[in-house]
Amino acid sequence: MSETSPQFQERSIVIVGVGLIGGSIAAAVRKRFPECQVIGVGRNEERLEQARRSGLLTSWTVDLNKSTVPAGSLGIVCLPVHQIPNAVTALLDANCETVTDAGSVKESVYEALGPNPDERFVGSHPIAGSEQSGFEHADANLFRNRLCVVTTSSPEDSALSRVQRVIAFWKSLGSSVYLMSPDEHDRVLALTSHLPHILASVAASCVNPELLTFTGTGYRDTTRIAAGSAKLWASILMGNSKHCVEAIEQAEEQLRKLRESLTSGNIEALEQLWEAAASNRRSLNGNHSAPS
Amino acid sequence: MSETSPQFQERSIVIVGVGLIGGSIAAAVRKRFPECQVIGVGRNEERLEQARRSGLLTSWTVDLNKSTVPAGSLGIVCLPVHQIPNAVTALLDANCETVTDAGSVKESVYEALGPNPDERFVGSHPIAGSEQSGFEHADANLFRNRLCVVTTSSPEDSALSRVQRVIAFWKSLGSSVYLMSPDEHDRVLALTSHLPHILASVAASCVNPELLTFTGTGYRDTTRIAAGSAKLWASILMGNSKHCVEAIEQAEEQLRKLRESLTSGNIEALEQLWEAAASNRRSLNGNHSAPS
Repeated sequence: MSETSPQFQERSIVIVGVGLIGGSIAAAVRKRFPECQVIGVGRNEERLEQARRSGLLTSWTVDLNKSTVPAGSLGIVCLPVHQIPNAVTALLDANCETVTDAGSVKESVYEALGPNPDERFVGSHPIAGSEQSGFEHADANLFRNRLCVVTTSSPEDSALSRVQRVIAFWKSLGSSVYLMSPDEHDRVLALTSHLPHILASVAASCVNPELLTFTGTGYRDTTRIAAGSAKLWASILMGNSKHCVEAIEQAEEQLRKLRESLTSGNIEALEQLWEAAASNRRSLNGNHSAPS
Repeated sequence: MSETSPQFQERSIVIVGVGLIGGSIAAAVRKRFPECQVIGVGRNEERLEQARRSGLLTSWTVDLNKSTVPAGSLGIVCLPVHQIPNAVTALLDANCETVTDAGSVKESVYEALGPNPDERFVGSHPIAGSEQSGFEHADANLFRNRLCVVTTSSPEDSALSRVQRVIAFWKSLGSSVYLMSPDEHDRVLALTSHLPHILASVAASCVNPELLTFTGTGYRDTTRIAAGSAKLWASILMGNSKHCVEAIEQAEEQLRKLRESLTSGNIEALEQLWEAAASNRRSLNGNHSAPS
């Protein structure tokens, strides 16, 4: 994976939603490819102008149409999950040749879009983020050395030029890329991302503020991601409700086993359950290599 | 809270179990009060001699008795929870005037000890730690600016000289101290420490190693504490099984509510559940002041 891919051929990108993720994409492109136009789209003119003045955007518009978008642009939707399909359609109706997104769920976006001729929409999920929000926290290195899942309804046919274009885009920001179908993405991410958020939220729900004095670094780290925006996370979880419910049921089964080992005083069973999970987690240290 | 409390009056402390916690207590005392004898007790002569050579101990013994312990010593047991009561008794039977410990649960230790005349045993729980183990990771600053809960069966009568002695000891290592009954400690810590460990372990149990590629910083932080020793954590949870089962039931109820909001498509309910937990967690930032 090269730091600054020579294949970068974008002359203009259009980012709908200039928050933490959209702003970080803008920052990365502006830093690495200063000749590329970066056009921000949103509803709040004042915020967009602030983002432009801070150097993230070359221009902005609140009116997305064929006259405001250069022909052939790459469109990138960085909005909460439930707002993605409408914005994708608007970008395609304007002049964008290819559109991608940065949403944490995929199948529901494809379903809401309906037919996707020539795969003009290619889904993306950069596995990078922060519990912060707003372009003020934009980070040009947010995607560097991170994995981005690119979804296509035919992952076996990744030779499609639009899929290749989206892959090249993420690689040019320093990410490695993995191809998946939308459904496979959602099933896997329910376990690797959405369930940890749910369990962090459950842990936080059980500690009222007056007990926070008695928490340590364990509580702090385990619940860090529970502090994220409720609107954002309700949108993500609802957009992947089928697989999230399956993941919750798997967690409930594990909690039941742990509880029963405690009520029956079966310390061997408790140790085995703990060790199996600890062994999973220890595999992360040093073995966390993303496919290229 | 003064950095180096002038009240430190220990001339010899006896640490049973020279691992991460015992080693860090030794390191803190050696650094701050070099005139104090620090005697290590364990079973492995080679390890104890390594700890002495590394500067943590002034001497060590594998044979705890009145001839190896200076009269009036403060004894500190830093062993897994189920091994604490026997070690406390052994220290009291040797020459220790007062004995404390560093265990994460308290009520079961008091119960196993039986009658505690004159409160010669005063429980402690420094809320500090690491997923690492072994005296090689000892940290002289591990207890600095952290909270230590000191337990006594009569928290209203904290004037007892032995309780005051243990309080002064932890303050001299830079900790603030909070007094509680053993049962109250266990009920609170089940929610603030043991449940987060349980939920971290559940999250880790649901991600097999082949899926680790698709995890981000959220999974990594949420599950960090799941990598700890299975023997250690089974001992802690089993030693606080009553309150841990109650905490698990509270978590199960919250998971059920989240799952039902997803299956019924009730995004308002989901947002409310998320926001209440997020609000708890956000209270930690900046408001985390420990009582003195």
